[in-house]
Amino acid sequence: MAAAPVWSVDPRTGNPREQVAVEATAEEVDRAVRAAHAVRGALADRTVRAAFLRTAADLLAEAQEHVIEAADAETALGPARLTGELARTAAQLRAFAEVVDEGAYLDIHIDHEDGSRTPPWPDLRRYKIPLGVVAVYAASNFPLAFSVPGGDTASALAAGCPVVVKAHPDHPATSEICASLLRRAAARHGLPEDVLTVVHGFEAGVELVKHPLVSAAGFTGSIRGGRALFDAAAARPTPIPFHGELGSLNPVVVTEAAATERAEQIGAGLGGSMTMGAGQFCTKPGFVFAPSGEAGDQLLKSLTETVSGTGAGVMLDHRMREAFVQGVAERAALPDVEAPVTPGAGGEHTVSAGFLTVPARRLAQEGPHDALLEECFGPVTVVARYDSADEITAVLSRLPGNLTATLQIATEEADGSAAGLLAELTPVAGRVLVNGWPTGVAVAPAQHHGGPYPATTSTSTSVGATAIERWLRPVSYQSTPEALLPAELREDNPQNLPRRVDGRRV
Amino acid sequence: MAAAPVWSVDPRTGNPREQVAVEATAEEVDRAVRAAHAVRGALADRTVRAAFLRTAADLLAEAQEHVIEAADAETALGPARLTGELARTAAQLRAFAEVVDEGAYLDIHIDHEDGSRTPPWPDLRRYKIPLGVVAVYAASNFPLAFSVPGGDTASALAAGCPVVVKAHPDHPATSEICASLLRRAAARHGLPEDVLTVVHGFEAGVELVKHPLVSAAGFTGSIRGGRALFDAAAARPTPIPFHGELGSLNPVVVTEAAATERAEQIGAGLGGSMTMGAGQFCTKPGFVFAPSGEAGDQLLKSLTETVSGTGAGVMLDHRMREAFVQGVAERAALPDVEAPVTPGAGGEHTVSAGFLTVPARRLAQEGPHDALLEECFGPVTVVARYDSADEITAVLSRLPGNLTATLQIATEEADGSAAGLLAELTPVAGRVLVNGWPTGVAVAPAQHHGGPYPATTSTSTSVGATAIERWLRPVSYQSTPEALLPAELREDNPQNLPRRVDGRRV
Repeated sequence: MAAAPVWSVDPRTGNPREQVAVEATAEEVDRAVRAAHAVRGALADRTVRAAFLRTAADLLAEAQEHVIEAADAETALGPARLTGELARTAAQLRAFAEVVDEGAYLDIHIDHEDGSRTPPWPDLRRYKIPLGVVAVYAASNFPLAFSVPGGDTASALAAGCPVVVKAHPDHPATSEICASLLRRAAARHGLPEDVLTVVHGFEAGVELVKHPLVSAAGFTGSIRGGRALFDAAAARPTPIPFHGELGSLNPVVVTEAAATERAEQIGAGLGGSMTMGAGQFCTKPGFVFAPSGEAGDQLLKSLTETVSGTGAGVMLDHRMREAFVQGVAERAALPDVEAPVTPGAGGEHTVSAGFLTVPARRLAQEGPHDALLEECFGPVTVVARYDSADEITAVLSRLPGNLTATLQIATEEADGSAAGLLAELTPVAGRVLVNGWPTGVAVAPAQHHGGPYPATTSTSTSVGATAIERWLRPVSYQSTPEALLPAELREDNPQNLPRRVDGRRV
Repeated sequence: MAAAPVWSVDPRTGNPREQVAVEATAEEVDRAVRAAHAVRGALADRTVRAAFLRTAADLLAEAQEHVIEAADAETALGPARLTGELARTAAQLRAFAEVVDEGAYLDIHIDHEDGSRTPPWPDLRRYKIPLGVVAVYAASNFPLAFSVPGGDTASALAAGCPVVVKAHPDHPATSEICASLLRRAAARHGLPEDVLTVVHGFEAGVELVKHPLVSAAGFTGSIRGGRALFDAAAARPTPIPFHGELGSLNPVVVTEAAATERAEQIGAGLGGSMTMGAGQFCTKPGFVFAPSGEAGDQLLKSLTETVSGTGAGVMLDHRMREAFVQGVAERAALPDVEAPVTPGAGGEHTVSAGFLTVPARRLAQEGPHDALLEECFGPVTVVARYDSADEITAVLSRLPGNLTATLQIATEEADGSAAGLLAELTPVAGRVLVNGWPTGVAVAPAQHHGGPYPATTSTSTSVGATAIERWLRPVSYQSTPEALLPAELREDNPQNLPRRVDGRRV
């Protein structure tokens, strides 16, 4: 059987651009994983790893023009957005180099022998070691920041884990270019290129998560695809951690006072956030509580103006475009649902942004309107009009987990009176915002990009320094002679690492 | 249908002692979980939680006589061992009170707004919040330290999570006594008693892990039982973290030089460790690499003397006794397997300790001898005689994951020459010991009690301060006004917590 070709496709026309690869067979996946496993020891040196990550960032920045051209051609995300994404991706690689240099992620604990304890404590020294080969499933909507050179890859390499990336079919050319940059960066530091490889094809992705030498997986994508891989990871003879970011509605609550204070500004901000990148952000605000009555009407008027003024957008591929058109049509057909700006098909290859409204009370119990509580990927949001705070509470309690939840409050509510609403939003999200918009995820140490299922399949984050924790496991050495200890755990701390010794930070 | 009675049984005779409870129906499990969920807010105050844990330790210590009498009557573990276990359990509760007081587990990160970043960073503040109701599955072999008042319960309550314990059928009376002590301790601090409840029955345990309001589970037990619950946790509509400690072979490598230096001491130490508590420790050394030839023969002679001198032991229940008798008989019947001291049935209610030997080369490839690479609960170990280091490597690479791995080396090998062997043991275990024995697990910050599957189903530990991490998830607050922030994240740090602000520890 001939190998299935992998084509780069132009979503602006639906036409194939070029064949960039072939789908990996089970044997090829096996070979890639074995090759990665074989070179895992090469990543043991923290100094080399940090330098490798910095060189990867440099090479990515140097190749900017070429990378962005390819990425734009096969994703239609546009040069401006992709320029920002490339800068962010390079910054992520550098940020993880800093994390590696600092070494706090090793979480070193040393407890000296203590005969005064009952029973006595032996000398115990713990740090974290890499899990092994990590499988990364690239996202459709971030061809760089959540794909081959993205946060999962950067954090796994930073942890000392070789990576096999399952490329996303929406940007195979970009994936190949980025893989060759990363492999070149590895070679510059004397590392085997096989510390990172890319495979293509749906079946290859399934093989990958089942491979006995794959130790963990990171995923960004749909609930259906992510759950299938999560299930496969859990069903293995030896289950592995599966850190998947699957889907999120990202609810927004606009208080009556907030709508009264600045209906226009909130409507415009919401319209900008939900249509950004053709609504293809995992943090798109997809569900909004707005008050009934005049203030809410004003907000909707402003939202209508903003969304109406948004030009037709190109989605990442035609399958997504069709899912969007069908998804909004089904939702719009529900009783009591209106579409002040009708979302749907734009031109032959585009979509039009829009939004739906529904009385919040329609969502207080299980029913056909529950479709409105499911993420619809693309430029649409659902505005639930509420008559009372009780209706907000009732619907919030029925929401699945989210990456974010946003509260829009009036100036005077910042005095503490909105604390109750904040407390209601916290259980359903991993990041809670006040008077901001959830699109845009700062790569900061205090960031958390994750949330209750299905936002993520674990309690981890895929953005920020602590993303490295996903690819490590602790190991303790007991009563181990100094000369046999890893350098990180030696008494004289030759690598000058932050450690907790006998309970105290040093 | 009448409720199924739960009997406390004396393993020394097999006779029922008393009926202590009835098995919980699905409705009763539902009621217990809902009650726990309803009171979760009561655990929000760290000061109260710490005081509650200390009072729980006090009440347990005060009730020592009563608790140990019940535990000994239904487990036959003996007053000496149980006195130690009770002290350890009380110490665990107090240690987690200290963890709560200190607050480092909250992992607070604050990044102030930074407009110099591209894109700009908003104000972000992250800490960890409790997951919700935790299900704890008690262990057979630690009626206190890994059961109702044990580490899973203590760490979950410390995290702020209410707990529903599925009691182990081997010690229902002890479970009920301990539950009433913990509930009394809660009440003393004005906490609802439902922050901890106990349910009995196999089906109740299955219902518990499937309950929509259960957020995470901790388990200590067999591979079969633990894997079934792990699978149920993963198959839920909303999967939950399942931290299971399932089984471990705990390999020991004795170098030729070590055997030459102190054959007698190693044999005696091994014999003591593997027969301790009738071989019913999860850290029992169950597989030992010993050299062929004279030094190894001397070691076996010493082991034979120690094990022969061990009296018959009572196992935790008769089902375990039968599994042990059958398990050792099947293993002993394999070709080339010998039994210098035959393990098996002792008296009507007891077992005899023993050990088996096998040439290590028999285990280098898949075959019927793989049964020797599976844990056999009870007082038996398998000694694999090796002719070369290559044989050790070949067999180590085939071992499942372990809680511990032990290296016995000679004095001169501590100079660094044994580093290669240590590096081979690290991938298969969570704790690596040199010249010690794995039974005995210090409750220290640097402890790690966990390991690659099936030792644990996650990368977490069930012993030591970091066990609390299992029951928490991070949440970030973005651009949130001071008056709306949780106290832990306020600028003036009113609770004086350790935090990382703009990348620096304060």
